[in-house]
Amino acid sequence: MRVAYLDNYAASPLPPEVREAMLPWLGESYGNPSSLHSWGDKARMAVEESREKVAALIGADPEEIIFTSGGTEANNLAVKGIAAGSRRKGKHLVVSAIEHFSVLHAARSLEKQGYELSTVPVDGHGRIDLDALQAAIDEDTVLVSVMTANGEMGTIQPIQEAARIAAQKEVPFHTDAVAAAGHLPLDVKEMGVQAISLSSDLIYGPQGVGALWVKKGVRLIPLLDGGVQEGGRRGGTENLPGIVGMGKAAELARRKMAARSDHLKSLRDALISRLPQKVEHVYLTGHPTERLPWNASFVVEFIEGEGMLLFLDQQGVAVSSGSACTSRALKGSHVLTAMGIPPERAQGSILFSLGPQNSMEDIDYVLEVFPPIVERLRSMSPLYAKYVKERG
Amino acid sequence: MRVAYLDNYAASPLPPEVREAMLPWLGESYGNPSSLHSWGDKARMAVEESREKVAALIGADPEEIIFTSGGTEANNLAVKGIAAGSRRKGKHLVVSAIEHFSVLHAARSLEKQGYELSTVPVDGHGRIDLDALQAAIDEDTVLVSVMTANGEMGTIQPIQEAARIAAQKEVPFHTDAVAAAGHLPLDVKEMGVQAISLSSDLIYGPQGVGALWVKKGVRLIPLLDGGVQEGGRRGGTENLPGIVGMGKAAELARRKMAARSDHLKSLRDALISRLPQKVEHVYLTGHPTERLPWNASFVVEFIEGEGMLLFLDQQGVAVSSGSACTSRALKGSHVLTAMGIPPERAQGSILFSLGPQNSMEDIDYVLEVFPPIVERLRSMSPLYAKYVKERG
Repeated sequence: MRVAYLDNYAASPLPPEVREAMLPWLGESYGNPSSLHSWGDKARMAVEESREKVAALIGADPEEIIFTSGGTEANNLAVKGIAAGSRRKGKHLVVSAIEHFSVLHAARSLEKQGYELSTVPVDGHGRIDLDALQAAIDEDTVLVSVMTANGEMGTIQPIQEAARIAAQKEVPFHTDAVAAAGHLPLDVKEMGVQAISLSSDLIYGPQGVGALWVKKGVRLIPLLDGGVQEGGRRGGTENLPGIVGMGKAAELARRKMAARSDHLKSLRDALISRLPQKVEHVYLTGHPTERLPWNASFVVEFIEGEGMLLFLDQQGVAVSSGSACTSRALKGSHVLTAMGIPPERAQGSILFSLGPQNSMEDIDYVLEVFPPIVERLRSMSPLYAKYVKERG
Repeated sequence: MRVAYLDNYAASPLPPEVREAMLPWLGESYGNPSSLHSWGDKARMAVEESREKVAALIGADPEEIIFTSGGTEANNLAVKGIAAGSRRKGKHLVVSAIEHFSVLHAARSLEKQGYELSTVPVDGHGRIDLDALQAAIDEDTVLVSVMTANGEMGTIQPIQEAARIAAQKEVPFHTDAVAAAGHLPLDVKEMGVQAISLSSDLIYGPQGVGALWVKKGVRLIPLLDGGVQEGGRRGGTENLPGIVGMGKAAELARRKMAARSDHLKSLRDALISRLPQKVEHVYLTGHPTERLPWNASFVVEFIEGEGMLLFLDQQGVAVSSGSACTSRALKGSHVLTAMGIPPERAQGSILFSLGPQNSMEDIDYVLEVFPPIVERLRSMSPLYAKYVKERG
């Protein structure tokens, strides 16, 4: 059977170059960067080399990069660590309504501990309301967190403008760049932010590793206490193969960004223009132009995401509905809700997340198998029957 | 040059079987266990299979295993998560004085947040004072944490007895089994504990992954908020290759425990009996018999650990002085201090941590190159000169 894996936001194949870079650290090479001998020295050099590569991807100082176990830990460390670091200044946090759960739920955890939380709304295209952001920040605010781009519906945020608003009020600004890094050129100085979260797997590196960049001078309380690894900001023996893999992935992301982006955009735009021609009542979600190169997200009316996923899987096609991290949570997407999409429409959300390994043949194949699936699901849908009846 | 890597507590070579198990997940296999399609199903099955293998190593229910990014995260999650989960019951913690920093510093973080912390002393062999433990627990105590065995000096704790004391007072008991797992037969029911921390790399699995077992009914507040992975107790996309590697390592550890243990003990005991014959003023640290099969730790009087490490490294021998996690912290070992070893003697600590790949030839080689190194260092030591002069 032909297959088309279009769920790269959930997981993606490891490029051979990344695998090759990791293999020595799963074989003849081993060591602990803290050890005072040659094995330790070699391990430490490998970690520092990766740190430089990750830093280069966002124009940062390598010393300001903290390796973590992934994007979720990076976001938790940013939100909880910066909040704890400025506990004496205030207890108010500002986040956008469409943040990933690792930011949103981290902020809600703090709320339970006595912090105040303001959530900034977005418009119908998923862009943050900058006036509302400005109004939300007060004397007590210790952190603003707005993602660089949303992985679920692709919208890119006006981060520079948002960061400028926070800077005027001298509040640290964190951005979750997990979905954006490697696809949009990011530079910490141009962006004007104080903290950035990255995840290895979203830049086509291995799972289980990520990084948080925090600008010097921003006080951060560690989440994982232990040894003095990562400059005393994150305890725990370093994940050598993972860190080396992330470094290689960052190097490739930087070098191949333009070429990958062109390729992904061509696939994305083919889906965006051709799918609504093939299937009635299909609407793009997110911003029409300010969107991630790899993201083609839609709402298919009158049917549910789960049915589409399962029937597509039978045809060898992998996609997701809402965030992959939440698809087993059986909850509606908070992102689509925040964009004003009513629950009955949001149920029909579908996300095609493209990867460098995808081809136009994958798109052709999906466009061939998807319309009959929608037809079949609609034939069983009471909502669709009602619509047809009312239309007359 | 001949080499002898005897620093397996810091890092160890990955057994070929573990590497082979991981490789598919760094190549043709990929997926996110949360995804609703075949790729997701396959990833989920791989994670659950590993969970069963890790659970089997300690006689636990797989549902009670939470995968983490390592032993440090497992310890932080246990200490902070259980404390937060019983905040309304009390704010007092009891830990032993020789815990790993990931337990000790986690507890000290809570102390800064208003918790009270009692530290239970150990005797000269590093065994916990059970009467002091009994006396330390009060109405307000919400957690007792005592490690199963100490990696730095090898002493095995009377965990069953310690857990029984906590159970009588109905206080949850956590044990950091990072250094012990895979080497001592552990069974959660026999031990009578409520939480156990494990680290993959210490059972000869990959770095960057670990697990916390928490008994059903013990309330645990997550450290990493995000998606609903790990039963809602630990957010973040699963580290597939790491988790699969840890599962394989747990399976091997269970199957090979007796054989590995016999082999390691023979090397350990050769070092313990022969080193003091070869070098004067060398003393074993930790318990003479109740000790980890892989641990041979000593104090070499009149000289410093760092010098020994660097000279041994020149001869191709890797060892450590104190915990590898702290060797770059440039602080004296809190473990040796707790055992009543004065700082000037503790400076000469040296740890030979053995692994399954080591042979008696490694021991012979170390016993050949080590005495002249000690001699050379002592010839430069003012402390030794003073001793010789006083002895007359």
